[in-house]
Amino acid sequence: MNTTDILVIGSSAAGLVTALTARRVYPGKKIVVTTTQEKTLIPCGIPYIFGTVQSSEKDILPSDKMFEANNIEMLVDEAELIDLENKTVKYTSGQSIAYDKLVIGTGSTPIKPSWLKGADYRNVFTVPKNKTYLDQMQASLQQFKKIVVIGGGFIGVEISDELRKSGKDITLVEKLPHVLHLAFDADVALPAETLLKERGVKVLTGQGVSEITGNGHADGVKLENGELLEADAVILAMGYQPNSQLAEKSGIAVTSKGFIKVDDYLRTEHPDVFAVGDCAEKRDFFTRKPSPIMLASTACAEARVAGMNLFKLSAIKNFIGTISIFSTALGETGFGVAGITETLAEAENFNIVTGTFQGIDRHPGTLKDTHTQFVKLIVGKESGVILGGEVMGGLSVGELINTIGIIVQNKITLNSLLTAQIGTHPLLTASPAGYPLIKAAENASTKLLYRHE
Amino acid sequence: MNTTDILVIGSSAAGLVTALTARRVYPGKKIVVTTTQEKTLIPCGIPYIFGTVQSSEKDILPSDKMFEANNIEMLVDEAELIDLENKTVKYTSGQSIAYDKLVIGTGSTPIKPSWLKGADYRNVFTVPKNKTYLDQMQASLQQFKKIVVIGGGFIGVEISDELRKSGKDITLVEKLPHVLHLAFDADVALPAETLLKERGVKVLTGQGVSEITGNGHADGVKLENGELLEADAVILAMGYQPNSQLAEKSGIAVTSKGFIKVDDYLRTEHPDVFAVGDCAEKRDFFTRKPSPIMLASTACAEARVAGMNLFKLSAIKNFIGTISIFSTALGETGFGVAGITETLAEAENFNIVTGTFQGIDRHPGTLKDTHTQFVKLIVGKESGVILGGEVMGGLSVGELINTIGIIVQNKITLNSLLTAQIGTHPLLTASPAGYPLIKAAENASTKLLYRHE
Repeated sequence: MNTTDILVIGSSAAGLVTALTARRVYPGKKIVVTTTQEKTLIPCGIPYIFGTVQSSEKDILPSDKMFEANNIEMLVDEAELIDLENKTVKYTSGQSIAYDKLVIGTGSTPIKPSWLKGADYRNVFTVPKNKTYLDQMQASLQQFKKIVVIGGGFIGVEISDELRKSGKDITLVEKLPHVLHLAFDADVALPAETLLKERGVKVLTGQGVSEITGNGHADGVKLENGELLEADAVILAMGYQPNSQLAEKSGIAVTSKGFIKVDDYLRTEHPDVFAVGDCAEKRDFFTRKPSPIMLASTACAEARVAGMNLFKLSAIKNFIGTISIFSTALGETGFGVAGITETLAEAENFNIVTGTFQGIDRHPGTLKDTHTQFVKLIVGKESGVILGGEVMGGLSVGELINTIGIIVQNKITLNSLLTAQIGTHPLLTASPAGYPLIKAAENASTKLLYRHE
Repeated sequence: MNTTDILVIGSSAAGLVTALTARRVYPGKKIVVTTTQEKTLIPCGIPYIFGTVQSSEKDILPSDKMFEANNIEMLVDEAELIDLENKTVKYTSGQSIAYDKLVIGTGSTPIKPSWLKGADYRNVFTVPKNKTYLDQMQASLQQFKKIVVIGGGFIGVEISDELRKSGKDITLVEKLPHVLHLAFDADVALPAETLLKERGVKVLTGQGVSEITGNGHADGVKLENGELLEADAVILAMGYQPNSQLAEKSGIAVTSKGFIKVDDYLRTEHPDVFAVGDCAEKRDFFTRKPSPIMLASTACAEARVAGMNLFKLSAIKNFIGTISIFSTALGETGFGVAGITETLAEAENFNIVTGTFQGIDRHPGTLKDTHTQFVKLIVGKESGVILGGEVMGGLSVGELINTIGIIVQNKITLNSLLTAQIGTHPLLTASPAGYPLIKAAENASTKLLYRHE
């Protein structure tokens, strides 16, 4: 039997980063990664296969090469059962691998709701992290013109925009009041929706879907209001569910939502078995409530924590809860969010004040490529702690949201921002006198003024 | 006599932001700003007048409009003497203004070394923050082809690159081993220098200048090694000195380097008189030593602190020392630094370890506009505190360096970065598995591993 110190199931972001971290921290250990796929895709790049990137071949995560370069063994095989008592994993090929430490990084699968009639029709697609499926889907879509996308979260918005760019006639249907409604407040979600429309995507919000019409082959989507949308093909972008069947049938505890239960070191209830990424339970950074957010970036942070803590726990290298840090782009406009939104803060009863500012991201504004830049901050009224932020602007907001992410994770206060030094340059950023992050902090501070002085 | 609650001398970044902050925090106070210039330039935009922006008219800081919109009175007049006892300022026009609180934001002037023969020749220019001077300089330079720029700091590098873009034959002379040598370690300074050369600027480093040759009209620059560079015009970019004459002759204490002495609230020794920006004393964030760094961004941070503390001090809204946060760009490549460099850390005897990583700023790397991204971190060996960072990459590094700036100012540790969540997106950032900031932290951590585990 194959024996290893560390066995990782899964080669996508979570499995890859766990294995690489383990190699860095435990240079003497044997590491084996097993995967069901010869080629792993870069998960966040998947929507871009359908437009900008053009082909799944240009969206490959070179896990195999990185494993080889780091003395990590990769095997293509599917884990069937974990024998916790004997610390072995049985695979469909018949082989078994004995481990000292096991890491489960089995990812997630698109949701195909059982209540949705027609969801299994031939020309109804989902967006799984599976190259073979996506290649076939992309080939099929070539013959179709009118596509209805159901679900206006990040994947739905991104794939709609990309398919539109490649000439398709796209209608995006979202049940909530705006696209990206769960991620952003309306200050950002609404402009994103307007931009998506300007870019040629038909967007129907506040519209539930009742069924996919047709007979084995979809020909339309019927809305809850009775309206019928014609469709040559339908894409379901209705979220993902954790792949936790392997864990569950092996006797590892799973939450009611199907996530593998883990502690702040990503350990399951069995101290030698870890779970990371989409399949692992997440808790919100502020509320400690279960969080449904699945992100490659969160997966990587969890993977780093798991990788470091495999053999020796460190109380200062734990996972502090997910802060929901997202970004996306539509053309030359970027959008980002980190931490709590105003909507969520109110729903959770946080006592908050908000601050906003809209400026420009170059100075002087006469420079070409100047883009408006909007920042919104959510601030605890009593603590002054920055609980979250949202940004919209040119492509540099992808990094700006990480500044806010660091601020949120470190519970930095408004006063710290009011006195902060910011690096600025005409060709790179807003002006130091009008830097939107600081001006948004000032705006929040002004609202608090008579409390804090 | 004109009487005001708050009198600000100077309308550039420091004066503007002080006045706007004071208006925000003290809505009922009367504020008067006096300035020697009808039109204030955006200081960081000045080098770009000579190329990208084309004209000083496109680099105007709309201080006057912002004053008007915020009920702040602006007067064009030159302060001649401050009468501290009677709390009045006398102006060259003959008017006097009585103040309750006075803020001095008189800025800085280019250094024209007295030892440099020829520095006063007709076609020898400096780069002051003065529209009239710069307009005449720009008109004069039209007739000249061969220009020698003396001094390879930010202004020297930026103006060389811009003049080169507009077709001039530029030689940049720097006494230190590299351009930008005081700001960056060689890891970043050397690639910047190479890029500047590739863009057509002749760069001579490690070369002191002994004199400017000619007779009233410069015709060349003689180096310390005896070499003679032909020149139709010469630009001195040898740094700036604080404009503290007004303060000094009025009896306000000034440091040996000519900066107005201030405390952490930007107060001079006279509690009703503040000084902000280039003319005010700066101390280094880590060493508390005097710092010679003059930056509009630092000036704005100081101005916010001064503006908030004018009438009521707040112990949590003080200025924490300058962290030297800079950025610049050459074409599509950005450069940034925040906090301490490796060179400075060693000179100051900090016990440090460094971490570096070079990756890319989009994912997959098959995306167009993908640029390499390099991050270097300077970390306290015992504390794990991030003392500084340097970045080089696409234009988004202008925001990335602000992430590092926030990290440095808040003394965030390496372990915090190792477990940090980063927002990533294919079109906006590096991949979550290869985000250079985190990978550089891992690199530093690996070096410390056997100390910290």
